[in-house]
Amino acid sequence: MIHNSTIDAQLNHRSIRKFKDTTLSKEQLETLYEVFRQTSTSMFMQNASLLHITDEKKKKQIREACNQKYVGAEGDLFIFVVDLYRNQQIRKQLNKDDGRVHTTDIFFQAMEDTLLAFQNVANAVESMGLGYVPLGTINDHPKKMLEILDLPELTFAVLGMQVGVPDQSPQLKPRLPLEFTCFENDYKKNIDVKDLADYDQVVTTYYDLRDANRRIDSFTKQITGAKLDNHETDRDDLIEVLHHQKLCMDWK
Amino acid sequence: MIHNSTIDAQLNHRSIRKFKDTTLSKEQLETLYEVFRQTSTSMFMQNASLLHITDEKKKKQIREACNQKYVGAEGDLFIFVVDLYRNQQIRKQLNKDDGRVHTTDIFFQAMEDTLLAFQNVANAVESMGLGYVPLGTINDHPKKMLEILDLPELTFAVLGMQVGVPDQSPQLKPRLPLEFTCFENDYKKNIDVKDLADYDQVVTTYYDLRDANRRIDSFTKQITGAKLDNHETDRDDLIEVLHHQKLCMDWK
Repeated sequence: MIHNSTIDAQLNHRSIRKFKDTTLSKEQLETLYEVFRQTSTSMFMQNASLLHITDEKKKKQIREACNQKYVGAEGDLFIFVVDLYRNQQIRKQLNKDDGRVHTTDIFFQAMEDTLLAFQNVANAVESMGLGYVPLGTINDHPKKMLEILDLPELTFAVLGMQVGVPDQSPQLKPRLPLEFTCFENDYKKNIDVKDLADYDQVVTTYYDLRDANRRIDSFTKQITGAKLDNHETDRDDLIEVLHHQKLCMDWK
Repeated sequence: MIHNSTIDAQLNHRSIRKFKDTTLSKEQLETLYEVFRQTSTSMFMQNASLLHITDEKKKKQIREACNQKYVGAEGDLFIFVVDLYRNQQIRKQLNKDDGRVHTTDIFFQAMEDTLLAFQNVANAVESMGLGYVPLGTINDHPKKMLEILDLPELTFAVLGMQVGVPDQSPQLKPRLPLEFTCFENDYKKNIDVKDLADYDQVVTTYYDLRDANRRIDSFTKQITGAKLDNHETDRDDLIEVLHHQKLCMDWK
């Protein structure tokens, strides 16, 4: 294994959900903005924007929508936004029609820009000795989030990030063995769930050490359980929200 | 600005499209796999897989589909795969129905896993003194790519990466000023294209210095030009391919 400070931080990544009661310095914030800015961008379209939420009322609304007490609490809250509005406005003011901005193709490229920027910022955060947790829950109620953030058409808040000085030291969460995820040339189609028995045991032990009082599920139990079971959820409004935003309009 | 080796590499990121005629060492490859593996994952579902393409015939097919001579040439070629097949197989073998694996919600979470892993690997690559270029062109002909990679249902190749020892030193490509992309609380809806005049000049100068013989387009000229103009493209097959893969099935 190759070691350097970047890779060591990546291999030791944990989500942090408890932060000290401080916020980013101006210098830290500016650095994260610059890292966001320099991320790779598909076809140089620069289809991503970043919101830093400091307004207490907004933070509270987002926290309630996410239903996670650490959202918008200690530390700093960021929202990563897929953004085709800016380029549409440029076209409009220069007397061009919207062209391909409403297509799935262009939306996917904007998703790429935005999610690459997320991880780039995440790595910068950890390189400063800070921690973060990704907030997928900002889309637990996508219509509500759109209202809270007051985003115009052709934008979509894809992922949030709570950042700060860690006030906990969680254990490293064990991931699937590489033979299940990384392949040379040929994707592994023949999966035998019995081969996951050892990994299941590792995951169970991890939860046991983390909190002996909480229900412990192995990986395969989680995958066969509530996370992927059919259930009603506002997350199924995602497509309605995207269409409302005039994104992904060519889905058939 | 805060400086450390991670951030300095991020601020100096360039896409590399010309590599020396070497390939990754075993140690480098294993390190990239481990970085891929430790990336954040939505709801711990681990919905991403990685293909390392070493087969010359496959590399050639991918290069032709991408229509870029550096794809699968010098260096190493990776394909980042959105993967819900693995978890579907686990459910199936444990006598569960597919549950939510076909929904847009779960597909988006898998896109997040996969694209975060892409940038995590990208940062590890640069920390080793190597370079890379993201290959969005793997979806220029999405049906073709599916065939070449022989991917099963519930998988989707979202982005490729060509990695290697840089054999060029491109200039830093100037990005939009922060006031257009990073906001405190309120998304900037009032964009005036006139405010982009200075940036347009910076971009024009960049292209001029890069290659005086090539057509030089400012940022706003690019955005109002061919990239976003309506045109026929196989990239509009994306949704058909996703549905063929039984992904995003609840799009209305």
